Amino acid sequence: MKLRWHLLGLGILLGLGTAGFSFAAGIYYQHEHATQRLQQLIQQNPYAYYIRSKIYKVFAFFKTPDDEENANHRLGRIMKYGFPGLDDIRLYSDFVLSYDRRNRVAHWVCEHLQKKDLSTTTHVGRAHASFQPDLSVPSNFRSSLADYRRSGFNRGHLAAAGNHHSHQTHCNETFYLTNIAPQIGKGFNSGAWNNLEIYVRDLTLRYGSVYVCTGPLYKPKQRCDGKLSVEYEMIGPNLVAVPTHFFKVIMVESKVPLGKPYMEGYVLPNATIPDNLPLRSFLCDIREIEHYAGLKFFDGLRRSAIFGSNYPSESQVFRDFG
Amino acid sequence: MKLRWHLLGLGILLGLGTAGFSFAAGIYYQHEHATQRLQQLIQQNPYAYYIRSKIYKVFAFFKTPDDEENANHRLGRIMKYGFPGLDDIRLYSDFVLSYDRRNRVAHWVCEHLQKKDLSTTTHVGRAHASFQPDLSVPSNFRSSLADYRRSGFNRGHLAAAGNHHSHQTHCNETFYLTNIAPQIGKGFNSGAWNNLEIYVRDLTLRYGSVYVCTGPLYKPKQRCDGKLSVEYEMIGPNLVAVPTHFFKVIMVESKVPLGKPYMEGYVLPNATIPDNLPLRSFLCDIREIEHYAGLKFFDGLRRSAIFGSNYPSESQVFRDFG
Repeated sequence: MKLRWHLLGLGILLGLGTAGFSFAAGIYYQHEHATQRLQQLIQQNPYAYYIRSKIYKVFAFFKTPDDEENANHRLGRIMKYGFPGLDDIRLYSDFVLSYDRRNRVAHWVCEHLQKKDLSTTTHVGRAHASFQPDLSVPSNFRSSLADYRRSGFNRGHLAAAGNHHSHQTHCNETFYLTNIAPQIGKGFNSGAWNNLEIYVRDLTLRYGSVYVCTGPLYKPKQRCDGKLSVEYEMIGPNLVAVPTHFFKVIMVESKVPLGKPYMEGYVLPNATIPDNLPLRSFLCDIREIEHYAGLKFFDGLRRSAIFGSNYPSESQVFRDFG
Repeated sequence: MKLRWHLLGLGILLGLGTAGFSFAAGIYYQHEHATQRLQQLIQQNPYAYYIRSKIYKVFAFFKTPDDEENANHRLGRIMKYGFPGLDDIRLYSDFVLSYDRRNRVAHWVCEHLQKKDLSTTTHVGRAHASFQPDLSVPSNFRSSLADYRRSGFNRGHLAAAGNHHSHQTHCNETFYLTNIAPQIGKGFNSGAWNNLEIYVRDLTLRYGSVYVCTGPLYKPKQRCDGKLSVEYEMIGPNLVAVPTHFFKVIMVESKVPLGKPYMEGYVLPNATIPDNLPLRSFLCDIREIEHYAGLKFFDGLRRSAIFGSNYPSESQVFRDFG
């Protein structure tokens, strides 16, 4: 009697097993079949090709993290408000820059900072990164490490390394010499410029989403004969220009739904700046920066849509906005 | 009897007339019918749309001059050997330029000179043309007539007016301020620079097809402390840069079938140049011009395909080549 029950149990188990196996085989067959037909569709239809990653995701057995999609849209997100200029555009994993082949320094570097990207993980940092030339720039227009050696200038970041701490790659890429410009060390790179970078990160932590465009300026000054003249040094065997000033144009997206973005621009002279000068004293009309740089900032946005103009004090910015 | 012959003649004439008329009507009907079907095809098929002007020409009753086709391909022809750079490209009817928004002067201007374009017709010339700002440039980056007024500099052409004499429009467009740069008048604009332009036209008359790329340079020079530094004046309310030098890179296409093109580059300082200096003394390594300008010339052509390097004497060029 016991044996018969056992046999029955075994039979049921076998039956269930077969059913389960057949079911899985059916799923697998259908999946393979559909994937093949999908492959054909993708080869024939440009629209299907365009959204292929999304279709594949629908067919997948397990939910996959949409890394690829994120990467695809990251650059689109950074440039959401338009390109300041279109000369020799270069895409990196977490910032976009336009390279000035004549001066061997970038025209501009655009970043999009989000709160989550700033969280410092212990194993990501500048300790693992090193300055290196970007070999994708033609050798005739490339700056090299030799240009900065014994030049008396620091290798100053345009896109700050501290803004790109979510992946080691992001951090490393800010050390490409395309993102570097000759900066005065004491009183600028380690002083006012550093304070400005910290201010931008503070804004990000406070408001969540900040767009920054950074670049060099070559501003004319009055000569002794009263005429205006541009003058800047060139260093190293590759003749890398030493900008007279650096600018940062900052746009803070509002936390309030349908709230208007807020925009401000800073211009700092590439010189030793006294420690006691407040950042606010370097505020500059954005149209003036555009005129000197030959660029147009956040042009995707009508100027009238920008909330307010420059504020008199830092505390007022934090009080009035967001 | 006579009447009958007359009637016969009339009958034959009428018959022939009817036949001729029917024949013409048949042609017309077929033409209309085909044109209608062609119209449908052009609306449905992108390839048919793309070559529509060629198809229409096949159907036409009379041979038409292919003006439209020429105009379409003119810009392609000028840029046949590639773009030196891609910043703010501007297309004019007979030349192409890249505009430097920071300096309010072009980066480069490309022209293609052909023998037939140089033939001076009496009613075309600079007498009918006048300098004017190009209103398609955003006002913040535009140079104006006021910038040059009482500046002490001439309004120097980059694409020479004398190269564009086949239409009055072509000539007029060289007077847009985008094609103009501040040049020293006596000893440069009316001296060595003018001689260089005449030399280019001589080459064209001799060899038939010449490509020219012209632009400004901002070359660094040694300061008293031994460092290299770029220095240039900026004039007028819009701050138009006064280049320190001007370059012309010239490429002569060979008359011999499958013959290799010949290329040479000139750099002239924007200063009073003594009359007795030969043009050959301003010959310059093209790679050096590329380095200072941040541009790449005739990059569509491998350098090894370029016939020879710079020649020691003008007569040798004319003797050895073509």
